[in-house]
Amino acid sequence: MLIVAITGMPGAGKSTAAKALEARGFKRIVMGDVIREETRRRGLEPDEKNTAKVMLELRERYGPGAVAEVCLRSLKTMKEDVVVIDGIRSFAEVEVFAKAGKVKLIAVEASRDRRFRLLTERARSDAPTSRASFDERDKRELSIGVGNAVALADESLSNEHTTPDELGRRAVELVGSWVAAAG
Amino acid sequence: MLIVAITGMPGAGKSTAAKALEARGFKRIVMGDVIREETRRRGLEPDEKNTAKVMLELRERYGPGAVAEVCLRSLKTMKEDVVVIDGIRSFAEVEVFAKAGKVKLIAVEASRDRRFRLLTERARSDAPTSRASFDERDKRELSIGVGNAVALADESLSNEHTTPDELGRRAVELVGSWVAAAG
Repeated sequence: MLIVAITGMPGAGKSTAAKALEARGFKRIVMGDVIREETRRRGLEPDEKNTAKVMLELRERYGPGAVAEVCLRSLKTMKEDVVVIDGIRSFAEVEVFAKAGKVKLIAVEASRDRRFRLLTERARSDAPTSRASFDERDKRELSIGVGNAVALADESLSNEHTTPDELGRRAVELVGSWVAAAG
Repeated sequence: MLIVAITGMPGAGKSTAAKALEARGFKRIVMGDVIREETRRRGLEPDEKNTAKVMLELRERYGPGAVAEVCLRSLKTMKEDVVVIDGIRSFAEVEVFAKAGKVKLIAVEASRDRRFRLLTERARSDAPTSRASFDERDKRELSIGVGNAVALADESLSNEHTTPDELGRRAVELVGSWVAAAG
């Protein structure tokens, strides 16, 4: 199994890239959904504060690969040749997924100003309410190790000057080249 | 003063980008030179082991911005409109340079396989002697915070599929656009 793992800072465009791959026919697993589901399961609103709390708790209790381990269980039941993992937050998670196949890690990147704009423009329940809460979220993600995942990626896609369509097309081309190389 | 700060993992192509900017007429300051000079000043060969030791010592004694603080002193005597800083290793260093002007941070990126190849192909005294020593150096740089600097960059330049000339040309174009925007 080829596991296309997508990482990046909040708002960089991970899901835009991952959704384009899904539209192309690849199975997509959203790591944030695991956290949002767990937050709901605890009877909490899946807003920014609560999802952050649950994410940190899961990692504290089960280690830095906790969320990946949960995903890994469903991954192992899948028959797909290629699976896209949307929302890698540390290199420890990459190492967990490596138990199920060959992992290729893509970092989607954009500047802080652009990410803040992209995040506030979208309507998701965990969008930042201010630049301060955005900075805090950046810091939280970096403390988990997302910076290391970005720095150790196999490919980086800049989303600084691209439209969503262009970013998606470049992700599809990239994964297409990996699939072709894998024969 | 516009300070173009260049970060990236070992072997990603930081100096290739920075030298192209130097060839274009911009002043270039190499942060690694500060460490290599300090290593020589202590009567040690500036090989991988000794430069690593000196770098960690400087940071332990003077904090995460130590090497940047040394560079800042010479920066403040300069009359240039644009200065290129080659070899940012943490976001703390970016914050030090922000005292002297507007900082724009470029991350130069490549996969681990490509970086290992690029590093072993070049002849510098601190080139890795094995994949294990390469991995160790990666880990050391990440522990200092280079991953966070990469993740927080204003622009990322992928060096995965480019020639040195192409990478240099893209860096020059990018900085040209910033200079033009600054009026």
